Amino acid sequence: MTTLIIAEAALETVPCEIINHPAVRNHARRLGLKPSETLLDRSYHHAAMSKLQDNGRRGRPDIVHFALMEALGTPLFLRGMLKVYVHTVNDRLITIADNLRIPKSYFRFEGLMVSLFRDKVIKSDEGRVLMEISDGTLADLVNAIRPSRVIGLSRTGIQGTAEKAVAENLADDGCCAFVVGGFPRGHFSESTTRLLNLTYSISDIGLEAHVVIARVLYECEKFLLEKGIHHEGDEKRRQVGT
Amino acid sequence: MTTLIIAEAALETVPCEIINHPAVRNHARRLGLKPSETLLDRSYHHAAMSKLQDNGRRGRPDIVHFALMEALGTPLFLRGMLKVYVHTVNDRLITIADNLRIPKSYFRFEGLMVSLFRDKVIKSDEGRVLMEISDGTLADLVNAIRPSRVIGLSRTGIQGTAEKAVAENLADDGCCAFVVGGFPRGHFSESTTRLLNLTYSISDIGLEAHVVIARVLYECEKFLLEKGIHHEGDEKRRQVGT
Repeated sequence: MTTLIIAEAALETVPCEIINHPAVRNHARRLGLKPSETLLDRSYHHAAMSKLQDNGRRGRPDIVHFALMEALGTPLFLRGMLKVYVHTVNDRLITIADNLRIPKSYFRFEGLMVSLFRDKVIKSDEGRVLMEISDGTLADLVNAIRPSRVIGLSRTGIQGTAEKAVAENLADDGCCAFVVGGFPRGHFSESTTRLLNLTYSISDIGLEAHVVIARVLYECEKFLLEKGIHHEGDEKRRQVGT
Repeated sequence: MTTLIIAEAALETVPCEIINHPAVRNHARRLGLKPSETLLDRSYHHAAMSKLQDNGRRGRPDIVHFALMEALGTPLFLRGMLKVYVHTVNDRLITIADNLRIPKSYFRFEGLMVSLFRDKVIKSDEGRVLMEISDGTLADLVNAIRPSRVIGLSRTGIQGTAEKAVAENLADDGCCAFVVGGFPRGHFSESTTRLLNLTYSISDIGLEAHVVIARVLYECEKFLLEKGIHHEGDEKRRQVGT
């Protein structure tokens, strides 16, 4: 199984230091929520965020939204051949269920994330777990999923293409974890870098996380299709002619 | 120059038939706008939209937002090798300036589109035109830009890959227009189909517009790089060592 990890993602609820800032309180009131329940979001909290440590890498839930939209819209995910996780800047781990459809409307995505941070789990009407959040570092996640290789994508990596990053690392069974940063600027932290077997820079222009994800997952799909590897579910669908 | 056209896009201001619906008025009040100035958006106007003709293909500005984010984040666009246009469901044509950075926050994108529909043009602080909207059909646009080929991407097309769609149609100088639907369901209208030299279906699973765009533009980039084609500006950047 191929794995995508969106790491150090700029996704969190408003931290207590700025909970009483007018920008935070006004936005919470508009949403009908307590300030502590709302997502930290530079679009609304720019003025309040200047007081926060490391604020240039925080408060960008839109990056996670785009990254998830990109990953969850690929045939690789739709065919059950991709696991997706989000590791946040504050060491929370979000597990995404197979076949999850993420809301395309940012307004609905925001509501979903608010519920997730509050209730720690999102279930379907039938009780199936769709998303879960728990405390844990990226190292905890890598230890739990034990991929054969952990490959970072970052401008600090060795020069290469997405095709090369995939061909050199993806096992024939698709087993490999690709790690893409979910923050607006800067590079992976030292603790993330330590977990990576290798890091590739797939463009000489800095790319948004979602563009990197689109390219790497597309190359994974091409690589696996060329090897004639399909998921069992896919095989079953073909057999029943659907 | 390669061209991307997002066609029949589900982007418009609220039409007069539903301007007095409570859902429309409430949303406009929250934004501090007249109802007629707000974007038609199924996330907020679902109840009101049932009265609208062809409503299943309207009111999805988020699709245009994702599609533009995808296209404008590619090295092809960032290097000035891609022109991007949006043709809307109501025959409006939006021209996107080279090097435009689209707001990642949906809230800011919404504000930008409201201004565009109201003022017909968005300018930078220095007076440079960033986006323009005018009345016109897709045929008007194609006649104006006169691409060597006009290629549709749709599930109704001939089976192929993004690689094939590009290799078989992109001229060595990158001249070709790719047309991707900016609507949530259904296929191109007859008037769009008539303008297409050929239509490809690049996946046996239905793909979101932004996924199709990511793949086609990535393949264009690979094709042009292989041919050693760079934009002049790129050449200049290299020469001055930036």
